[in-house]
Amino acid sequence: MPEPTTRRGKDTKGRIVESAAALMYERGVSSTSIEDILAASGTGKSQFYHYFSSKEQLVAEVLRHQLQQVLREQSRFPLDTWEGISAWFGAMVDMQQNQRDYRGCPLGSITSQLLDHGDLLRTQAADAFAHWESVLSDGLQAMQSSGLLRDDADPDTLAETTIAVLQGGYLLSSTKRDVRPMRNALAIARSQLRSYASDACR
Amino acid sequence: MPEPTTRRGKDTKGRIVESAAALMYERGVSSTSIEDILAASGTGKSQFYHYFSSKEQLVAEVLRHQLQQVLREQSRFPLDTWEGISAWFGAMVDMQQNQRDYRGCPLGSITSQLLDHGDLLRTQAADAFAHWESVLSDGLQAMQSSGLLRDDADPDTLAETTIAVLQGGYLLSSTKRDVRPMRNALAIARSQLRSYASDACR
Repeated sequence: MPEPTTRRGKDTKGRIVESAAALMYERGVSSTSIEDILAASGTGKSQFYHYFSSKEQLVAEVLRHQLQQVLREQSRFPLDTWEGISAWFGAMVDMQQNQRDYRGCPLGSITSQLLDHGDLLRTQAADAFAHWESVLSDGLQAMQSSGLLRDDADPDTLAETTIAVLQGGYLLSSTKRDVRPMRNALAIARSQLRSYASDACR
Repeated sequence: MPEPTTRRGKDTKGRIVESAAALMYERGVSSTSIEDILAASGTGKSQFYHYFSSKEQLVAEVLRHQLQQVLREQSRFPLDTWEGISAWFGAMVDMQQNQRDYRGCPLGSITSQLLDHGDLLRTQAADAFAHWESVLSDGLQAMQSSGLLRDDADPDTLAETTIAVLQGGYLLSSTKRDVRPMRNALAIARSQLRSYASDACR
């Protein structure tokens, strides 16, 4: 589908994606109909089909939107310092309890609902996770350059494993409506990272 | 709903749950209709509604079924030895790749699809995870008794964190169709457990 060229067109498309993301995060992907999204965003069916050929295409945009939210939230923390990483972990636990009402990771929650829905959306979700990991990996590489992290650490693997452990913490926390499993999982992720701290930082 | 009392009734109910579990694991919960389940199990609508008042009640039974599958799979491994735990971790990675076609954890996969569907199913899923963790915790307690695990280890917390980390590994592995994130996540879970190995076992 063509990207909107006018400001008004961009606003409309953005509003649809925003409403879809909020509804799908709250109710789940399959429980959110295009009609629900039209009503929530105040747009009409013809506008919708001007920008999206299908619900699948909309969900692909929602995945990108959720990735951007995750990246925006974490951009408040300097992920190239030990203190920044710890503060980021703490903030995610706090958000899960106080802002997300235990709904889980904005990206992980939607991804786990899409794994049975074909390779297109699964691949988009995999790309979103790879992007997220690359941002964390960049921070870890900067820590190597500045001497905080040992040279024998593998930033890409550490970043991927950290995100994996985080996702598991989110799932158990959302299932039990309890932050403890998330906090404990992140404590392990932190220990794993710290095991590569250079001697000066231990 | 009343439990079936005849052998034939038990067979029918069991066949419905079995078919539902297989279809929901393959296609997702929302993409599996009662009609699909009737066709797959070779039962009629009146039989179905004799045993289940709703799809929700069936899903609750599917959760129990998936827990039993997980427990049956892991019962092959002595989870009160270091070798048994390592073999169990290895077997799950192997199954994810070679038997599950990257569909993820039988229990975690369905749970992540139910979190937006009300407290009844979420609570059932939380109970299923608690049961799973208690079996692992029993193994860790036996390791304390036999001197393999230090007395200052907390078996319940270690079990919960292990299952959380496992779930995160499954999610990233299923998203990327790659066992690496699962293998690396489980390596962390193993390190965490081993950090409580008694001195004689290190």
